[in-house]
Amino acid sequence: MMHKNRANNSSLNPQNKVTASIIGARGYSGLELTRLLLNHSSVELTHCYATKDFSLTDDILDSGAQSIICLSEDKLMNHLTDVVFLATPAEVSLKLAPQIMAAGKKVIDLSGAFRLKKNDYNKWYNFNHTESEILANADYGLMPFAGPVAEKNQIISNPGCYATAINMALIPLLKRNLLETENIVIDAKSGTTGAGRKASENLLFSEVGENCLPYKVGQHQHLPEIQEAIEAFAGVQIEPHFSTHLLPVKRGLIAGIYATAKATDLDVIKNAFAEEYANYDLVRFGRELPKLASLTKVVGTPYTHISFQLVGKKLYVFSAIDNLLKGAASQAVENLNRFLDLPLHHSLTTSPTSFQTSSEK
Amino acid sequence: MMHKNRANNSSLNPQNKVTASIIGARGYSGLELTRLLLNHSSVELTHCYATKDFSLTDDILDSGAQSIICLSEDKLMNHLTDVVFLATPAEVSLKLAPQIMAAGKKVIDLSGAFRLKKNDYNKWYNFNHTESEILANADYGLMPFAGPVAEKNQIISNPGCYATAINMALIPLLKRNLLETENIVIDAKSGTTGAGRKASENLLFSEVGENCLPYKVGQHQHLPEIQEAIEAFAGVQIEPHFSTHLLPVKRGLIAGIYATAKATDLDVIKNAFAEEYANYDLVRFGRELPKLASLTKVVGTPYTHISFQLVGKKLYVFSAIDNLLKGAASQAVENLNRFLDLPLHHSLTTSPTSFQTSSEK
Amino acid sequence: MMHKNRANNSSLNPQNKVTASIIGARGYSGLELTRLLLNHSSVELTHCYATKDFSLTDDILDSGAQSIICLSEDKLMNHLTDVVFLATPAEVSLKLAPQIMAAGKKVIDLSGAFRLKKNDYNKWYNFNHTESEILANADYGLMPFAGPVAEKNQIISNPGCYATAINMALIPLLKRNLLETENIVIDAKSGTTGAGRKASENLLFSEVGENCLPYKVGQHQHLPEIQEAIEAFAGVQIEPHFSTHLLPVKRGLIAGIYATAKATDLDVIKNAFAEEYANYDLVRFGRELPKLASLTKVVGTPYTHISFQLVGKKLYVFSAIDNLLKGAASQAVENLNRFLDLPLHHSLTTSPTSFQTSSEK
Amino acid sequence: MMHKNRANNSSLNPQNKVTASIIGARGYSGLELTRLLLNHSSVELTHCYATKDFSLTDDILDSGAQSIICLSEDKLMNHLTDVVFLATPAEVSLKLAPQIMAAGKKVIDLSGAFRLKKNDYNKWYNFNHTESEILANADYGLMPFAGPVAEKNQIISNPGCYATAINMALIPLLKRNLLETENIVIDAKSGTTGAGRKASENLLFSEVGENCLPYKVGQHQHLPEIQEAIEAFAGVQIEPHFSTHLLPVKRGLIAGIYATAKATDLDVIKNAFAEEYANYDLVRFGRELPKLASLTKVVGTPYTHISFQLVGKKLYVFSAIDNLLKGAASQAVENLNRFLDLPLHHSLTTSPTSFQTSSEK
Repeated sequence: MMHKNRANNSSLNPQNKVTASIIGARGYSGLELTRLLLNHSSVELTHCYATKDFSLTDDILDSGAQSIICLSEDKLMNHLTDVVFLATPAEVSLKLAPQIMAAGKKVIDLSGAFRLKKNDYNKWYNFNHTESEILANADYGLMPFAGPVAEKNQIISNPGCYATAINMALIPLLKRNLLETENIVIDAKSGTTGAGRKASENLLFSEVGENCLPYKVGQHQHLPEIQEAIEAFAGVQIEPHFSTHLLPVKRGLIAGIYATAKATDLDVIKNAFAEEYANYDLVRFGRELPKLASLTKVVGTPYTHISFQLVGKKLYVFSAIDNLLKGAASQAVENLNRFLDLPLHHSLTTSPTSFQTSSEK
Repeated sequence: MMHKNRANNSSLNPQNKVTASIIGARGYSGLELTRLLLNHSSVELTHCYATKDFSLTDDILDSGAQSIICLSEDKLMNHLTDVVFLATPAEVSLKLAPQIMAAGKKVIDLSGAFRLKKNDYNKWYNFNHTESEILANADYGLMPFAGPVAEKNQIISNPGCYATAINMALIPLLKRNLLETENIVIDAKSGTTGAGRKASENLLFSEVGENCLPYKVGQHQHLPEIQEAIEAFAGVQIEPHFSTHLLPVKRGLIAGIYATAKATDLDVIKNAFAEEYANYDLVRFGRELPKLASLTKVVGTPYTHISFQLVGKKLYVFSAIDNLLKGAASQAVENLNRFLDLPLHHSLTTSPTSFQTSSEK
Repeated sequence: MMHKNRANNSSLNPQNKVTASIIGARGYSGLELTRLLLNHSSVELTHCYATKDFSLTDDILDSGAQSIICLSEDKLMNHLTDVVFLATPAEVSLKLAPQIMAAGKKVIDLSGAFRLKKNDYNKWYNFNHTESEILANADYGLMPFAGPVAEKNQIISNPGCYATAINMALIPLLKRNLLETENIVIDAKSGTTGAGRKASENLLFSEVGENCLPYKVGQHQHLPEIQEAIEAFAGVQIEPHFSTHLLPVKRGLIAGIYATAKATDLDVIKNAFAEEYANYDLVRFGRELPKLASLTKVVGTPYTHISFQLVGKKLYVFSAIDNLLKGAASQAVENLNRFLDLPLHHSLTTSPTSFQTSSEK
Repeated sequence: MMHKNRANNSSLNPQNKVTASIIGARGYSGLELTRLLLNHSSVELTHCYATKDFSLTDDILDSGAQSIICLSEDKLMNHLTDVVFLATPAEVSLKLAPQIMAAGKKVIDLSGAFRLKKNDYNKWYNFNHTESEILANADYGLMPFAGPVAEKNQIISNPGCYATAINMALIPLLKRNLLETENIVIDAKSGTTGAGRKASENLLFSEVGENCLPYKVGQHQHLPEIQEAIEAFAGVQIEPHFSTHLLPVKRGLIAGIYATAKATDLDVIKNAFAEEYANYDLVRFGRELPKLASLTKVVGTPYTHISFQLVGKKLYVFSAIDNLLKGAASQAVENLNRFLDLPLHHSLTTSPTSFQTSSEK
C-alpha cells in the first residue's frame, strides 16, 4: 500500500506538513473531517469555511480546533492551502473546484460533482455539468480499488456513501465472476446525517423517529455511480434493483445485497474478499466477523464490515459503514494519503476507534 | 364481506355477546388484543391470563380493564370462555389448544403452532409437532384471503407478522401471473415489539438503539409460512431471498419486495390490488397512497399500506403494517369476526385510529 | 360535570350538531384535533385550513377525513363555522380571533395569544398585544379548574402544555396550603412535537437523537402562565425555578416538581388530589398509579398522570401528559364540551385510548 | 498536576510499562476501559475477564484487542497484574478486592463497594459490608479534588456517574460558600448504559423507547455518596432533593441543579469554576461553553461540561458527562495516572475525541 517515493518536485511532501482547508466544515461530514485532520500527523489544518458564521469549538472539544481560522466561504480564495477539501453541495463544488485547481492546488471533493463519467448530470443531479474536462480527468477515489493517484492529477472525487458500502461488497465478487449479473437486488438503509445538516420538515425528529421510510426508489443518484465503478473496477455491467431507506438513527449505513451465486461453497465467497483485501487494513469480513454486519460495530470507525451467507445458491451479503467516515471523511483521508504517498490507513487507525457496543446474534 | 346468517345452532351468536379470554395478556400483542376486545361491541372479555401476577390497569388506562379478571395461566381451564385467544409462545399454544378444543370452545391462536401444514416444525420451530390432526384442520386466517370459516372449525391460526405484510402484497400479483416467480427478493424490517416482552441482552435499548441488525437471514420461520400461503391462495410456488432486520423502533414492520414484472404498465399492478381488495376496507395502496408506505402511517391502525413503483420491468413493492395489529391483534379480531359472521373490519374502524405523523416525500 | 341546560337562545346546541373548523390543521396539534373531532358525536368538522396546500388523508387514515374541505388559510372568512379552533402561532391567533368573533362565532385558541392577563407579551412572546379587551375577557380553560364557561363568552384560551402538566399537580396542593411556597423547583421535559412541525436545524433527528437539551432556562413563556393560573385557581403566588428540556422522543411531557411539604404524611397529599379530582375522569394519581408517572403511559391518551413521594418533608411530584392531547387537542375538546354543556370527557374516553406499553418499576 | 517523582522502590513505574487487567471487561464500562487502556502509553493491558466466554474482538475493532487474553473470572488469581480494574457489581468487588490486595497488587474499583465511609451499606446497597478496614482506607478518586494518592494506598474507589457529574458542579460553589445549602434540588437524567448490560424487561428497547422514567426517587445510592464527597471536599453538609430518570439514549448523563445563590453576579459563579479548575484540563464551563451543557457534546469524551444561569438569585446549573467515561472508564484512567504520577489527562486527550454533533441554541 506504500507507494514508492515520488520525485522531489512533487508539490506535496509529507516530511514537511502540507497545509489543508475544509469548505463546508460545519456540516456533518465536514466536522468529522476536521476531527480527523486535527489528528493527522502530516497535515496542518489551517482554515475552515462555512456558509454562515461559526466557531469550530462549538462542535469539537479538541483544543487543536481553537487554532483553526473559521471564515465564511466568500473568503476562500484569499487563503488557499496545498489541499482543499470540498464538503459542499455538488453545485458548489462544481463552481469552486476549477478556481482552486487554476491556482495550482489539489482538491478532494466529497460531493457528487465529479463522479459520473458516463451518465447524465441533468438526469441524476438536476444540473448542467459545465466542467467536462475536469470531470473526465478526476480520479474516482474508491479505496483500495483506485490504486495510486497519477502525479499530475489535481482532483480526487470521493465516492458517495451508498456507492462505497455497496461496491466494497460487490466488486470483489463480480471481478471474480462469482455472481449471476442478472437480478442483483440492493436494499440499503442510512442514518439521517447522510442527508446533511439542512433544516427540512421530513428530517425532523418528529417525522423520522419510530419510522423507516423508503425514498428515491430506483432513482437514487448513487445508482449510476455504483454501475460506473463496477464497470471500471470489475469489468462488468449490472442493472440492479436499488432502493434506499431513511432509518431513525443518526449515523451508519447498511446495505443488503441479494444475488445468485455461481458457487455453493461459502469459502469461495470468503476467499474472494480475503484475496481482494489482503493488503487493505480497513475492512473486516466473513468469519473474522463473528456476527452479521450492523451499524453499531462500524459507527465511529473507518472500517467496512461485510458479512455473507449462502442458502443453496442464494447469496446474502450485508455491508456496513459509517456514512460520515468510510462514506465520507475517512475515505477522504485515505485519498489525502494517496496524494501524500502514505499508507491508506495512515492516521486513521493509530488512535482508538470510537467505541460502539452491540451484542448481535 | 358480510356472510349470510348461520343456523340457529351456531355456538357463537353476536346478538348475544360472546365471552372471550386472552392467554398471554401481558405481552405486547396480548395487551393490544385486550384493548381491541374491550371496544368490540359483540364480545365480553371476561378473563385474562399471564405467566406472572399482573393487573391490566398497570398497562391499560381504559376503565373497562378494571372489570376483567386477571389470573395466572394455571387457572385457565376453570373459566373457559366461548372464544379463547392464545397470545402465547408456540410450544404453549400446542399444549393448550387441544385442551380448550376438547371442552368445545373456539380458539384463535396468535402463535406459529398451527401455521405450517407441509413444512417441518423440527426444522423451523425447533420442536416436535404432536397434534397433526388439529394442525391439518386449522384454518389459516390471512384476511381477506381465507374467506368464511367453516362452521365446525374450532381453531383459526392467526398469521405471522412478516408473512402477513409480505403476502398482502404478493398474493394479488402472483395470483394474476404478473411476476416472474424466479428471483423474488424480500428484505423486511421490524420494530422490537415483534420480538416480544422477554428480557434478553440483544433487545436492550443499549444494544438496539442507533443500530439496524439483520438476523435469521434466509432462516426465518416465516419463510415456509409465506411459501405455503402463496401456494394456497395464489397457486404458485416461489423460493425467494428472505432477510429480516431489527429496527430501532418499537412498533411497525415494512417489507421491500423486489421482482421482475411481466408488464411495464403500472396500472396493471394497481388494478390487481384494486380488484383483489375491492371489498376489503383495511388496506390502502398505490395512488390512493400519496407517498411511499412507511411505518408511522400504519402504526396504531389495522391497515396494510402497499406502495409500488416500476422502473422498466423492475418492480419495487413496499408493504407496511403495525406488527402488533394487522400483524397480530387486529387480524385476530378479523378472525373473531369470521367466527361471528360479522364484517371483517367490525369494531376495528369505528373508533379513531391512533394517530401517527409523517411527512415523507 | 354536566352543567344544567342552557337557555334555548344558546347559539350552540349539541342536539343539533354544531359545525367546526380548524385553522392550522396540518400541524401536530391540529392533526390530533382533527382526529378527535372526527370522532365527536356532537360536532361536524367541515373545514380545515393550513398555510400550504394539503390533504388530510395524507396524514389521517380515517375515511371521515375525506369529507373535510381542506383550504389555505386565506379562505377562512368565507366559510365560518359555529366554532373555530385556532391551532396557529400566537401572532396569527391574535389577528384571526377578533375577525371570527366579530362574525359572532366561538373561538378556541390553542396558542398563547390570550393566556397572560397580567404579564407582558413583549417580554414573554416578543410581540405587542393589540387586543386588550379580548385578552381581558378570554376564558383560561385549564380543566377541571375553570368550571362552566360564561354563556356570552366567545373565546376560550387553551392552556400551554407545560403549564397544564405542572398546574394539574400544583394547584390541588397549593390551594390546600400543603406546600412551602418558597423554593419550589420545576424541571420539565418534553418531546419534539411540542416544538411544532416547522423545519429548523435544532429539531433535526441528527441533532435531537441521543441528546437531552435544556433550553429557555428560567425564561420559558409558560412560567408567567403557570404563575397566573396558580394565583387564579389556588390563590397564592409562587416564584419557582423553571427549566425545560428537549427529549429524544416524539410525544409526551413530564415535569418533576420538588417542594417542601408542610405535612409528612403521604395520605394528606393523596387526599388533596382525591378531593380535587373526585368528579374529573381524566386524571390518575398516586396509589391508583402502581408506578411512577412516565411518558408511555399517557401518550395517546387525554389523561394526566400524577405520582408523588415524600422523604421526610421533601416532596417529589411527577406529572405526565401527552403534550398534543391534554397539552393541546384533547383539552381543546374539553373546552368545546364546556361550550356545549357536555361532560368534559365526552367523546374522549368512549373509544379505546391509543395503546402504549411500559413496564417501569 | 504532575506530581513529583516517587522513590525508586515504588511498585509502579511508568518508564517501564505497568501491566493491567480488567475484570468485567464485557460490560459497557469495561469495554470503554479496554479501549482507553489499549491506547495508554504507559500501560500494557494483558488480561481481560468476564463471567461468560467472550472475545474482545467481538466488540472492539482495534487490532490491539487481539493480543489480550480473555478468560472467565475464576481464572483471575492465576494471572495478577500490577493494576487490576474491577468493573464488576459491588458485591463482586467486595469479594475480589481483598484477595488482589493481599497479593500486593493495586486495585481501581469502578463499583460502589468502597465509596461510602459513613453511610450504611445495608440500607443503600442491600448487603452487609464485611471489609471495614479496606473501606476506611480506600481513596475516593473524584478528580481533580482527590489530589495525589498516598503511596502505600492500594485501592482507589472510582466515583459513581451521577455523583461525579453533580459534584463537579457543586463542590466549587459550596466550597466558596456561594450557595444557600438549604433547598438544593438535583434532577438527573441518564442513558441506558448506566444500568449495565444485564437483560431485564424494564431496559428493553420496547420499554425505554419514547419514554422518560423517574426511578429510585429520593432513594438512589449515589445520594449518600454525593453528600459524603461534598462534606469531604467542600466542608459542608447538604440534604438535597435528588431524583434520577432513565432517558431513551444509550450514553450520556446530565444533571439539573437548582439552588439559591448568595450572589446575583454571574461572574462570581464563573470565577469559582475558573479558580477551581485552573489546572484541570478535562472540564469546560460557562462562557467557554457557547451553549448549554447537553449530552451530545460530551458523549465519547472524558470532559465534564458545566453551564449556569442566574435569574435574580435563582441559580440554574447543568452538568453533563459521558456516564461510561468521566462517569466510569476515563475517570478510572485519571486514577491510574495518579498511581503512576502522570498528569490526570495523560493518554485521554492526545487522541481525537469521539465526535458528536449538536447545534443547540
